[in-house]
Amino acid sequence: MEFDSLIVSFSAAVDEALDRWLPRASERPSTIHRAMRYSIFAGGKRMRPVLCLAAAEACRGTIENALPSACAVECVHTYSLIHDDLPCMDDDDLRRGRPTSHKVFGEGIAVLAGDALLTSAFELLGRTRETPRHRHAAFFAELARAAGSRLLVGGQVADLEGENRTSTLAQLRFIHRGKTAAMIVASLRLGAMSANATPRQIEALSAFGQNLGLAFQVVDDVLDVTQTSEQLGKSAGKDAKSGKTTYPGLLGLDRSRKEAARLTKKSLDALAPLGRRGTMLRALALKLLDRAS
Amino acid sequence: MEFDSLIVSFSAAVDEALDRWLPRASERPSTIHRAMRYSIFAGGKRMRPVLCLAAAEACRGTIENALPSACAVECVHTYSLIHDDLPCMDDDDLRRGRPTSHKVFGEGIAVLAGDALLTSAFELLGRTRETPRHRHAAFFAELARAAGSRLLVGGQVADLEGENRTSTLAQLRFIHRGKTAAMIVASLRLGAMSANATPRQIEALSAFGQNLGLAFQVVDDVLDVTQTSEQLGKSAGKDAKSGKTTYPGLLGLDRSRKEAARLTKKSLDALAPLGRRGTMLRALALKLLDRAS
Repeated sequence: MEFDSLIVSFSAAVDEALDRWLPRASERPSTIHRAMRYSIFAGGKRMRPVLCLAAAEACRGTIENALPSACAVECVHTYSLIHDDLPCMDDDDLRRGRPTSHKVFGEGIAVLAGDALLTSAFELLGRTRETPRHRHAAFFAELARAAGSRLLVGGQVADLEGENRTSTLAQLRFIHRGKTAAMIVASLRLGAMSANATPRQIEALSAFGQNLGLAFQVVDDVLDVTQTSEQLGKSAGKDAKSGKTTYPGLLGLDRSRKEAARLTKKSLDALAPLGRRGTMLRALALKLLDRAS
Repeated sequence: MEFDSLIVSFSAAVDEALDRWLPRASERPSTIHRAMRYSIFAGGKRMRPVLCLAAAEACRGTIENALPSACAVECVHTYSLIHDDLPCMDDDDLRRGRPTSHKVFGEGIAVLAGDALLTSAFELLGRTRETPRHRHAAFFAELARAAGSRLLVGGQVADLEGENRTSTLAQLRFIHRGKTAAMIVASLRLGAMSANATPRQIEALSAFGQNLGLAFQVVDDVLDVTQTSEQLGKSAGKDAKSGKTTYPGLLGLDRSRKEAARLTKKSLDALAPLGRRGTMLRALALKLLDRAS
């Protein structure tokens, strides 16, 4: 109960900051600012920014100091969804129960809205305060690395190349590490950095995020098979349709669920060095992995 | 002569640094790194990085300190070309005399190669050294502002929206300011910042860049009408084909040439505060505006 209201208050703080820091919809050229806001205020779960703020709190930091990082990771996440949904990528018409950006604004504007949100991420990150252990440049390096060609973009490339052919478990992991785990890890690390975290705290959060991210994606694959589009708010069964290898496809549903449980345990174990301050992150992980959509 | 060999040595320094700092083509996933390198090493003029290095020298800085900024602006420029050439934007098959990225790698990878280069820009910028007057955060803010939804992306949005309708001179200026002038101004300012430039020097370079950028685009419009595709290394006459308003279309060729000359003079006048140290920038401006492709 107390935990749920914490999530609500974290999300509200992120929404309020994004609304304050992103250009108004009326600013010229208005189309791009409407498109950016359409996707960023589309009812996303705010998983990454909430993890970012929770990591800051776990390291005795403040929400206020972590907000620029929290907003930046949400901008990167939203940009990646807009581009992933394009006809030349996953070709999806539905996202979070609403028409995707290119369906509403056309493909050209959707590409540009993604570009603008990626750029905004770095602009917002500029609002971060340095801490004695973590300089400005380290924040930018962290975000650029996670969003770059070796991780976030690299995962999407490997995902595209995996269509209509069978991937190995190792290839699937490469995709998940890039597409999902990298930005979850970065969210946690940036939040911790804003709280002047020690190397030991940052290491613990990285291991937590890495395993949480992989577990999250296994759960996602399972839900894609077992839930309807209505339940998910996005097209269900699309992995199978596009000929992508998934965990259930490779291991079956039962073993996939066991793999999710194994990764979840590993992620929770990684939090040990944080002691009692890891409580909220632990609860968040369990909530994310025991979800229905 | 001395001047031309300076440009060659500046370009070579940029090429060498880009080659050293961007991921190898063999790095996994190799497709994205090949696509990034295909476009970044496509024989571009390196106008923006050369202006960046020249601005640094004009402010008594070193090439070495300005190189991260020079590489960053070239990455942003190249990303914007890849995305502008997409079928959902300007739909162009030819760039610098070679097939465009989406023609070689497919649309999905072209979108992602642009995304990755934009991200790399911020990664490379992280190599900048702070100076007493200019902190890391200021460098990132400068690049993000110029590349963002109000300027570079905003200009492309206005350009897209201007297809098949007549724009006013004010609308055309808005497009040029965003699509061309903003990144030229940022290139000069970043170079100057790396050299610990004074506010007065930065102001002079901004005015120089603003007018140079607008003049450059008027010249571009004129060349699009008067040159062949072979001479340009890209599709000639494409503005007219896509129903875009251009300077020659609005003012005629003669008055467009006069407007280019007027803006050129304004840009050169702006360099006065730099005194003799502005010589290379002056020569660069004249060379850029008196070009045939």
